[in-house]
Amino acid sequence: MPEAPEAPVVADRVPRLVGPVEVVGAGLVGASIGLACARAGIEVLLTDVSSENVRTASGLGAGRPRRPDDRPQLVVVAVPPDHLGRVIAAALVDGDAVVTDVGSIKSGPLADVADSAGAHRYVGSHPMAGSERSGPLAATAALFDGRPWAITPHAAADVEAVELVEDLVRLCGGVPVWLTPAEHDRAVARTSHVPHLLSALVAARLAEAPENHLTLSGQGVRDVTRVAAGDPRLYGQIVSGNAEAVAALLTEVRDDLEAMIAAVSAGDRAGLELLLDRGVAGTRSIPGKHGGPATPTRSVFVAVPDHPGELARLFADAVASEVNIEDIRIDHDPGRPVGLVELVVDRTRAEHLLGSLEERGWTTHR
Amino acid sequence: MPEAPEAPVVADRVPRLVGPVEVVGAGLVGASIGLACARAGIEVLLTDVSSENVRTASGLGAGRPRRPDDRPQLVVVAVPPDHLGRVIAAALVDGDAVVTDVGSIKSGPLADVADSAGAHRYVGSHPMAGSERSGPLAATAALFDGRPWAITPHAAADVEAVELVEDLVRLCGGVPVWLTPAEHDRAVARTSHVPHLLSALVAARLAEAPENHLTLSGQGVRDVTRVAAGDPRLYGQIVSGNAEAVAALLTEVRDDLEAMIAAVSAGDRAGLELLLDRGVAGTRSIPGKHGGPATPTRSVFVAVPDHPGELARLFADAVASEVNIEDIRIDHDPGRPVGLVELVVDRTRAEHLLGSLEERGWTTHR
Repeated sequence: MPEAPEAPVVADRVPRLVGPVEVVGAGLVGASIGLACARAGIEVLLTDVSSENVRTASGLGAGRPRRPDDRPQLVVVAVPPDHLGRVIAAALVDGDAVVTDVGSIKSGPLADVADSAGAHRYVGSHPMAGSERSGPLAATAALFDGRPWAITPHAAADVEAVELVEDLVRLCGGVPVWLTPAEHDRAVARTSHVPHLLSALVAARLAEAPENHLTLSGQGVRDVTRVAAGDPRLYGQIVSGNAEAVAALLTEVRDDLEAMIAAVSAGDRAGLELLLDRGVAGTRSIPGKHGGPATPTRSVFVAVPDHPGELARLFADAVASEVNIEDIRIDHDPGRPVGLVELVVDRTRAEHLLGSLEERGWTTHR
Repeated sequence: MPEAPEAPVVADRVPRLVGPVEVVGAGLVGASIGLACARAGIEVLLTDVSSENVRTASGLGAGRPRRPDDRPQLVVVAVPPDHLGRVIAAALVDGDAVVTDVGSIKSGPLADVADSAGAHRYVGSHPMAGSERSGPLAATAALFDGRPWAITPHAAADVEAVELVEDLVRLCGGVPVWLTPAEHDRAVARTSHVPHLLSALVAARLAEAPENHLTLSGQGVRDVTRVAAGDPRLYGQIVSGNAEAVAALLTEVRDDLEAMIAAVSAGDRAGLELLLDRGVAGTRSIPGKHGGPATPTRSVFVAVPDHPGELARLFADAVASEVNIEDIRIDHDPGRPVGLVELVVDRTRAEHLLGSLEERGWTTHR
């Protein structure tokens, strides 16, 4: 009989981050970090150009206003992209704290501080959370729970500084993802900035369309263009701060697009399918639920009359079938008050769910 | 006191479509049309190159196999895109039935039959339903309920033929959208084909990415690339059949993309924001629920532990708050079994929903 594998030995580690933590920029992300640190018993000091933000954030329990005699152990810079470099540099000369930032671009701010005497105390990071909301009122200690949080140390960073930032990430419930600053910027160009920009280009075509043409819109175009509703001022800052990586990827897309135009115009069916095949391969490379490989799913479609109670009834019935729902989408039907709800479930459970819902009187579309 | 407005007078109309209806191509759409017609008491005749499809569809109640002596009133051609023209032409010479088709491109098939003696009996149409599923087993009489169904008569079509096709659409529960064949093809190029193709180009970039880069994927890239998972063989046929309209729009996108690359590379923030602004305008032009103008919505985010019952509990609580849920999305957190559910509600109801859910113990992210 084979022996059970040994459990890995984990040494007890004394937490290195004990505080105080100063948060510079008490907006959504900064105030949420404040709340998470407070939740863990760490003292939090708040700084913001807006004293109202400081008042609001401390009122929520995210910390207290920083005083001149405070000596933070760690400073978290959470200001808008255009100000990151300057504020990080100022924090580095203001004492001997370790400094991190939470901006969505890492190379630019690093370049701004690389020559600073305190640069060895700077370790950039980037929590992947909360981009659609803003302001301290939106803050919550749970914002980062289970979310990826990139940590991007440069070559000259102190080991102790890196460990302190890792402690912060774990304390906030985040999942560390280790990347160099340049790798990170290339990664977010690919997974965030280029998708956003292409979504905007598709959406721009809709603004020019005759209205009755748009009645033919389905779920596909809604999904593709959803992210394009984001704030152009914010995304302009972010993309501009990652210009090199973004331009390189946009150029690859442009080259593919030229090939696609040529294939379509020439009736080159095989060439077109090749490009579409690469798209399919790309969709399969996105991590699935909880970071594991994507499990094959199937969609079950149910017609739901548009009263609030109906959706809850559908969910209760789906739950009673004991099939876990991985994702949901609601399609909006013009002309009739009926919604089509798409329940995405494990492929092997779809038939069971269908039968179960049909027994309970639901109209399903296979 | 003002008088109540008069109710419009609607003349009782004798239904013009009495049957039989022949369905050529007993796949998802054809068999569903058969089921809808049978539901309305219309006799349905089935034809398919696969006798198994005919057996399956008739077994489901979608009709009976066509016999040589049958004389259909209306023939519905529901075969794959590459065969449409040929099969429509054959149906036109096989008697004096009115003929329609349900293909997603209208100009091509029309050109194939325009010189046929029976062309005045042909009226193309296109139901916007069911593109992700296939085969007669997936068929349902309710597939078209409340869905837009484009009707695209050419200039030489008989009025009676047009009326018969309109009857079919309404009988199936569809909402007629009147367009010329060329208008239709431009419309679906814009609302369906170009979004699909651009989605594939974004997804293709992911296939080439280092794996740890992809851990930084969020909901945005999942939304943008979702539709790119569709079958390249099918979409290759569809796009090739709409080459002119698609190529024209792809060229517009290519020009915008060149402008975007130039703006990003040159640090032209204003130019980039202008392009993003047009994307925002485009997202606002998509019809909202039930075909009306999009009402301003706001998203409410709730942390939901990943057990089947939790989602139903959330919905029951949302319903108890008496706030109608317009849309739902589930975000998948790597590393922890917690999902973030996004409830999209009317902007004026969001605060009420938040307060109500928080009172019931839910962790919300504003």
